[in-house]
Amino acid sequence: MYLHPPDEALARRVAAVARRWGGDFAVVPVDDWKSLVRSFPGSVAHLTMYGLPLERVLPRIARLDRILLVVGGAKVPPELYRSSRFNVAVGHQPHSEVAAVAVVLERLLGIPGPVRAGSAPRRIVPSVRGKHVIGGRRHP
Amino acid sequence: MYLHPPDEALARRVAAVARRWGGDFAVVPVDDWKSLVRSFPGSVAHLTMYGLPLERVLPRIARLDRILLVVGGAKVPPELYRSSRFNVAVGHQPHSEVAAVAVVLERLLGIPGPVRAGSAPRRIVPSVRGKHVIGGRRHP
Repeated sequence: MYLHPPDEALARRVAAVARRWGGDFAVVPVDDWKSLVRSFPGSVAHLTMYGLPLERVLPRIARLDRILLVVGGAKVPPELYRSSRFNVAVGHQPHSEVAAVAVVLERLLGIPGPVRAGSAPRRIVPSVRGKHVIGGRRHP
Repeated sequence: MYLHPPDEALARRVAAVARRWGGDFAVVPVDDWKSLVRSFPGSVAHLTMYGLPLERVLPRIARLDRILLVVGGAKVPPELYRSSRFNVAVGHQPHSEVAAVAVVLERLLGIPGPVRAGSAPRRIVPSVRGKHVIGGRRHP
Protein backbone atom coordinates (compact mmCIF):
# COMPACT_ATOMS: atom_id res chain seq x y z
CA MET A 1 0.00 0.00 0.00
CA TYR A 2 1.29 3.39 -1.01
CA LEU A 3 0.52 5.99 1.63
CA HIS A 4 0.31 9.75 1.23
CA PRO A 5 1.04 11.82 3.22
CA PRO A 6 4.02 9.59 4.07
CA ASP A 7 4.10 8.06 7.56
CA GLU A 8 7.33 6.15 8.24
CA ALA A 9 6.29 5.12 11.75
CA LEU A 10 3.11 3.49 10.44
CA ALA A 11 5.11 1.68 7.74
CA ARG A 12 7.42 0.23 10.40
CA ARG A 13 4.50 -0.90 12.60
CA VAL A 14 2.86 -2.69 9.68
CA ALA A 15 6.17 -4.33 8.72
CA ALA A 16 6.49 -5.69 12.26
CA VAL A 17 2.96 -7.15 12.07
CA ALA A 18 3.78 -8.82 8.73
CA ARG A 19 6.97 -10.36 10.14
CA ARG A 20 4.99 -11.83 13.04
CA TRP A 21 1.88 -13.01 11.18
CA GLY A 22 3.18 -13.59 7.66
CA GLY A 23 2.24 -12.24 4.27
CA ASP A 24 3.96 -9.65 2.13
CA PHE A 25 1.75 -6.68 2.88
CA ALA A 26 3.82 -3.51 3.22
CA VAL A 27 3.20 0.21 3.51
CA VAL A 28 5.31 2.37 1.18
CA PRO A 29 5.20 6.05 2.13
CA VAL A 30 5.11 8.37 -0.94
CA ASP A 31 5.60 12.08 -1.30
CA ASP A 32 4.35 12.55 -4.85
CA TRP A 33 1.16 10.51 -5.25
CA LYS A 34 0.23 12.20 -8.53
CA SER A 35 3.30 10.95 -10.37
CA LEU A 36 2.79 7.50 -8.84
CA VAL A 37 -0.79 7.38 -10.21
CA ARG A 38 0.32 8.71 -13.62
CA SER A 39 3.20 6.26 -14.05
CA PHE A 40 1.52 3.15 -12.64
CA PRO A 41 2.03 0.28 -15.12
CA GLY A 42 -1.56 -0.94 -15.03
CA SER A 43 -5.08 0.39 -14.51
CA VAL A 44 -6.11 2.90 -11.88
CA ALA A 45 -9.46 2.35 -10.15
CA HIS A 46 -10.48 5.26 -7.94
CA LEU A 47 -13.01 4.26 -5.28
CA THR A 48 -15.55 7.04 -4.83
CA MET A 49 -19.24 7.15 -3.98
CA TYR A 50 -19.74 9.31 -7.09
CA GLY A 51 -18.55 6.61 -9.51
CA LEU A 52 -20.23 3.74 -11.32
CA PRO A 53 -21.65 0.89 -9.21
CA LEU A 54 -19.10 -1.79 -8.32
CA GLU A 55 -21.50 -4.52 -9.44
CA ARG A 56 -21.43 -3.04 -12.94
CA VAL A 57 -17.67 -2.38 -13.18
CA LEU A 58 -16.47 -5.53 -11.43
CA PRO A 59 -16.41 -7.85 -14.47
CA ARG A 60 -14.12 -5.40 -16.30
CA ILE A 61 -11.84 -4.85 -13.30
CA ALA A 62 -11.58 -8.56 -12.56
CA ARG A 63 -10.01 -9.15 -15.99
CA LEU A 64 -7.18 -6.65 -15.48
CA ASP A 65 -3.61 -7.77 -14.80
CA ARG A 66 -2.54 -4.96 -12.50
CA ILE A 67 -4.82 -2.62 -10.61
CA LEU A 68 -4.02 0.35 -8.42
CA LEU A 69 -6.98 1.00 -6.12
CA VAL A 70 -6.99 4.63 -5.01
CA VAL A 71 -8.90 6.05 -2.06
CA GLY A 72 -8.73 9.64 -0.95
CA GLY A 73 -9.78 11.66 2.04
CA ALA A 74 -12.46 14.32 2.25
CA LYS A 75 -11.07 16.51 -0.54
CA VAL A 76 -10.08 14.50 -3.62
CA PRO A 77 -8.71 16.73 -6.43
CA PRO A 78 -10.75 16.60 -9.69
CA GLU A 79 -7.60 15.46 -11.51
CA LEU A 80 -7.90 12.02 -9.90
CA TYR A 81 -11.39 11.51 -11.31
CA ARG A 82 -10.07 12.35 -14.79
CA SER A 83 -6.85 10.35 -14.67
CA SER A 84 -8.45 7.17 -13.30
CA ARG A 85 -9.55 4.56 -15.80
CA PHE A 86 -12.39 3.62 -13.47
CA ASN A 87 -14.28 5.62 -10.88
CA VAL A 88 -16.02 2.95 -8.83
CA ALA A 89 -18.70 3.30 -6.15
CA VAL A 90 -19.00 0.78 -3.33
CA GLY A 91 -22.37 2.22 -2.39
CA HIS A 92 -23.38 5.80 -3.16
CA GLN A 93 -23.47 7.28 0.31
CA PRO A 94 -20.64 8.56 2.51
CA HIS A 95 -18.66 5.60 3.84
CA SER A 96 -15.32 4.47 5.19
CA GLU A 97 -12.49 4.29 2.65
CA VAL A 98 -11.14 1.26 4.49
CA ALA A 99 -14.51 -0.45 4.05
CA ALA A 100 -14.53 0.34 0.33
CA VAL A 101 -11.07 -1.19 -0.20
CA ALA A 102 -12.03 -4.25 1.87
CA VAL A 103 -15.18 -4.95 -0.16
CA VAL A 104 -13.38 -4.56 -3.52
CA LEU A 105 -10.52 -6.83 -2.42
CA GLU A 106 -13.00 -9.40 -1.13
CA ARG A 107 -14.88 -9.34 -4.42
CA LEU A 108 -11.66 -9.68 -6.43
CA LEU A 109 -9.70 -12.13 -4.27
CA GLY A 110 -12.17 -13.69 -1.83
CA ILE A 111 -11.67 -13.91 1.92
CA PRO A 112 -8.15 -14.99 2.93
CA GLY A 113 -8.16 -18.36 4.66
CA PRO A 114 -5.92 -19.61 7.50
CA VAL A 115 -3.43 -21.19 5.08
CA ARG A 116 -1.93 -18.14 3.45
CA ALA A 117 0.22 -17.13 6.41
CA GLY A 118 1.68 -20.65 6.72
CA SER A 119 5.32 -19.58 6.79
CA ALA A 120 4.92 -17.03 9.58
CA PRO A 121 6.18 -17.59 13.14
CA ARG A 122 2.60 -17.15 14.37
CA ARG A 123 -0.43 -18.80 12.92
CA ILE A 124 -4.05 -18.91 14.03
CA VAL A 125 -5.96 -22.17 14.33
CA PRO A 126 -9.64 -21.23 13.84
CA SER A 127 -11.64 -21.79 17.05
CA VAL A 128 -15.30 -21.88 17.99
CA ARG A 129 -14.40 -19.92 21.16
CA GLY A 130 -11.18 -18.48 22.52
CA LYS A 131 -7.81 -17.94 20.87
CA HIS A 132 -5.57 -20.66 19.54
CA VAL A 133 -2.27 -19.40 18.13
CA ILE A 134 0.59 -21.63 17.02
CA GLY A 135 3.80 -19.89 18.01
CA GLY A 136 1.83 -17.87 20.57
CA ARG A 137 0.00 -18.46 23.81
CA ARG A 138 -3.22 -20.42 24.05
CA HIS A 139 -6.15 -18.83 25.90
CA PRO A 140 -9.19 -20.64 27.31
CA MET B 1 -24.59 0.99 15.55
CA TYR B 2 -24.03 0.79 19.28
CA LEU B 3 -20.79 2.49 20.27
CA HIS B 4 -18.73 1.95 23.40
CA PRO B 5 -17.09 3.97 24.85
CA PRO B 6 -19.96 6.39 24.16
CA ASP B 7 -19.22 9.36 21.90
CA GLU B 8 -22.14 11.77 21.64
CA ALA B 9 -20.35 14.10 19.24
CA LEU B 10 -19.74 11.28 16.76
CA ALA B 11 -23.39 10.21 17.04
CA ARG B 12 -24.49 13.76 16.15
CA ARG B 13 -22.11 13.94 13.16
CA VAL B 14 -23.40 10.64 11.76
CA ALA B 15 -27.03 11.76 12.29
CA ALA B 16 -26.31 14.90 10.25
CA VAL B 17 -24.84 12.79 7.41
CA ALA B 18 -27.92 10.52 7.44
CA ARG B 19 -30.27 13.54 7.26
CA ARG B 20 -28.39 14.83 4.21
CA TRP B 21 -27.84 11.57 2.34
CA GLY B 22 -30.72 9.40 3.53
CA GLY B 23 -30.95 6.04 5.19
CA ASP B 24 -31.66 5.19 8.82
CA PHE B 25 -28.12 4.49 10.00
CA ALA B 26 -27.61 5.86 13.50
CA VAL B 27 -24.95 5.67 16.20
CA VAL B 28 -26.27 4.88 19.69
CA PRO B 29 -23.68 5.51 22.40
CA VAL B 30 -23.79 2.88 25.17
CA ASP B 31 -22.20 2.79 28.61
CA ASP B 32 -22.76 -0.87 29.46
CA TRP B 33 -21.92 -2.95 26.38
CA LYS B 34 -21.92 -6.21 28.33
CA SER B 35 -25.57 -5.98 29.31
CA LEU B 36 -26.43 -4.94 25.74
CA VAL B 37 -24.75 -8.07 24.37
CA ARG B 38 -26.36 -10.29 27.03
CA SER B 39 -29.90 -8.98 26.50
CA PHE B 40 -29.84 -8.68 22.71
CA PRO B 41 -32.99 -10.38 21.33
CA GLY B 42 -31.19 -12.32 18.59
CA SER B 43 -27.82 -13.89 17.85
CA VAL B 44 -24.46 -12.36 18.64
CA ALA B 45 -21.68 -12.78 16.08
CA HIS B 46 -18.30 -11.58 17.32
CA LEU B 47 -15.89 -10.78 14.50
CA THR B 48 -12.39 -11.91 15.44
CA MET B 49 -9.43 -13.28 13.52
CA TYR B 50 -9.36 -16.19 16.02
CA GLY B 51 -12.82 -17.46 15.09
CA LEU B 52 -14.17 -19.83 12.47
CA PRO B 53 -13.81 -18.83 8.80
CA LEU B 54 -16.62 -16.60 7.52
CA GLU B 55 -17.08 -18.83 4.48
CA ARG B 56 -17.95 -21.71 6.78
CA VAL B 57 -20.23 -19.80 9.18
CA LEU B 58 -21.99 -17.60 6.62
CA PRO B 59 -24.77 -20.03 5.64
CA ARG B 60 -25.82 -20.31 9.29
CA ILE B 61 -25.61 -16.56 9.93
CA ALA B 62 -27.53 -15.71 6.77
CA ARG B 63 -30.56 -17.66 8.06
CA LEU B 64 -30.82 -15.70 11.33
CA ASP B 65 -33.54 -13.11 11.88
CA ARG B 66 -31.62 -10.67 14.04
CA ILE B 67 -27.84 -10.44 14.32
CA LEU B 68 -25.66 -8.26 16.49
CA LEU B 69 -22.21 -8.03 14.93
CA VAL B 70 -19.62 -7.19 17.58
CA VAL B 71 -16.12 -5.87 16.95
CA GLY B 72 -13.70 -4.93 19.67
CA GLY B 73 -10.44 -3.09 19.94
CA ALA B 74 -7.02 -4.48 20.82
CA LYS B 75 -8.08 -6.04 24.13
CA VAL B 76 -11.32 -8.00 23.86
CA PRO B 77 -12.32 -9.60 27.19
CA PRO B 78 -12.57 -13.44 27.10
CA GLU B 79 -16.20 -13.15 28.21
CA LEU B 80 -17.17 -11.90 24.75
CA TYR B 81 -15.77 -15.04 23.09
CA ARG B 82 -17.83 -17.18 25.45
CA SER B 83 -21.09 -15.23 25.30
CA SER B 84 -21.15 -14.93 21.49
CA ARG B 85 -23.07 -17.56 19.55
CA PHE B 86 -20.56 -17.20 16.73
CA ASN B 87 -16.92 -16.17 16.69
CA VAL B 88 -16.27 -15.39 13.05
CA ALA B 89 -12.98 -14.68 11.27
CA VAL B 90 -12.86 -12.48 8.18
CA GLY B 91 -9.33 -13.63 7.49
CA HIS B 92 -6.98 -14.91 10.20
CA GLN B 93 -4.44 -12.13 10.34
CA PRO B 94 -4.60 -8.74 12.06
CA HIS B 95 -6.97 -6.47 10.15
CA SER B 96 -9.23 -3.46 10.41
CA GLU B 97 -12.46 -3.96 12.37
CA VAL B 98 -14.18 -1.60 9.96
CA ALA B 99 -13.09 -3.82 7.07
CA ALA B 100 -14.40 -6.94 8.84
CA VAL B 101 -17.85 -5.39 9.39
CA ALA B 102 -17.93 -4.15 5.78
CA VAL B 103 -17.17 -7.58 4.31
CA VAL B 104 -19.76 -9.34 6.49
CA LEU B 105 -22.45 -6.77 5.65
CA GLU B 106 -21.61 -7.05 1.97
CA ARG B 107 -21.86 -10.83 2.11
CA LEU B 108 -25.20 -10.68 3.96
CA LEU B 109 -26.87 -7.73 2.23
CA GLY B 110 -24.93 -7.06 -0.97
CA ILE B 111 -23.60 -3.69 -2.04
CA PRO B 112 -26.10 -0.85 -1.56
CA GLY B 113 -27.17 0.65 -4.88
CA PRO B 114 -28.03 4.27 -5.70
CA VAL B 115 -31.76 3.69 -5.10
CA ARG B 116 -31.81 3.16 -1.36
CA ALA B 117 -31.31 6.80 -0.42
CA GLY B 118 -34.16 7.92 -2.70
CA SER B 119 -35.94 10.04 -0.11
CA ALA B 120 -32.90 12.06 0.95
CA PRO B 121 -32.37 15.71 0.00
CA ARG B 122 -29.13 14.72 -1.71
CA ARG B 123 -28.69 11.82 -4.06
CA ILE B 124 -25.79 10.71 -6.23
CA VAL B 125 -26.20 9.94 -9.91
CA PRO B 126 -23.42 7.46 -10.73
CA SER B 127 -20.85 8.99 -13.11
CA VAL B 128 -17.98 7.72 -15.22
CA ARG B 129 -15.99 10.79 -14.14
CA GLY B 130 -16.69 13.68 -11.81
CA LYS B 131 -19.46 14.21 -9.27
CA HIS B 132 -23.13 14.43 -10.05
CA VAL B 133 -25.32 15.09 -7.05
CA ILE B 134 -29.03 15.86 -7.18
CA GLY B 135 -29.73 18.46 -4.53
CA GLY B 136 -26.02 19.39 -4.58
CA ARG B 137 -23.55 21.02 -6.91
CA ARG B 138 -22.38 19.42 -10.14
CA HIS B 139 -18.64 19.24 -10.80
CA PRO B 140 -16.93 18.66 -14.13
